[in-house]
Amino acid sequence: MSLARHNALRYILNRMVQQSNARLDASFAALSDPTRRGVLEQLGRGDASITDLADRFHMTLTGMKKHVGVLEQAGLVATEKVGRVRTCTLGPRRLDAEMMWLERYRQLWDERFDALDQVVESLKQKEKNDGRNKAK
Amino acid sequence: MSLARHNALRYILNRMVQQSNARLDASFAALSDPTRRGVLEQLGRGDASITDLADRFHMTLTGMKKHVGVLEQAGLVATEKVGRVRTCTLGPRRLDAEMMWLERYRQLWDERFDALDQVVESLKQKEKNDGRNKAK
Repeated sequence: MSLARHNALRYILNRMVQQSNARLDASFAALSDPTRRGVLEQLGRGDASITDLADRFHMTLTGMKKHVGVLEQAGLVATEKVGRVRTCTLGPRRLDAEMMWLERYRQLWDERFDALDQVVESLKQKEKNDGRNKAK
Repeated sequence: MSLARHNALRYILNRMVQQSNARLDASFAALSDPTRRGVLEQLGRGDASITDLADRFHMTLTGMKKHVGVLEQAGLVATEKVGRVRTCTLGPRRLDAEMMWLERYRQLWDERFDALDQVVESLKQKEKNDGRNKAK
């Protein structure tokens, strides 16, 4: 591969990683608030106006608008204004990338703790053998 | 059930929901940064000192200490100081609750979009029938 081609590919790959990182940053940050998680669960049951949501979560309109803005930025909610009412629906993102990240992490976690278990097991075995050798 | 018992149960349930919410808040916030996700992936491969992590992620010691602090608060990393070196390992939390939240959300999402698909389908069918009736 030529150096120019190599650098171009590297650039594209870096951009892809950055974009995927930015998306995960935005969605995990959006999920780090109980009201925003509640809004997503609520919209999973049916569309709602900002006023409905503010009522249901005992918030001011301004407060709810902010939360919906964060969810919208992260692609988790879509809004549409018809007349004076802004209706919120679930956005196009199904949190696939977030799910994949968690799954991979849990796999690493399991492997890591399995490895530690094996270390502990082999230490125990060694201790047992040492004890036996001393007893002889 | 007596009112006192009812209120006591309600209080306990509320506390449980609040605690579970606080945990999800902390872990999703901890995951909303690419360096912190990188640190978790790195520790999944093996323990590391704060200095190792700072080097690997091209950060100052102070910056890395802050990130590790956030992960530790969320129960995702555990640290132990031996002499002058603070070693980081994966914490006890396997992100089970976070995984469950995402799974439930995706289920709601699927059901919601299936329901919308059905509405669109029935509208199409209606249009087709109306067209046929007009053509008669």
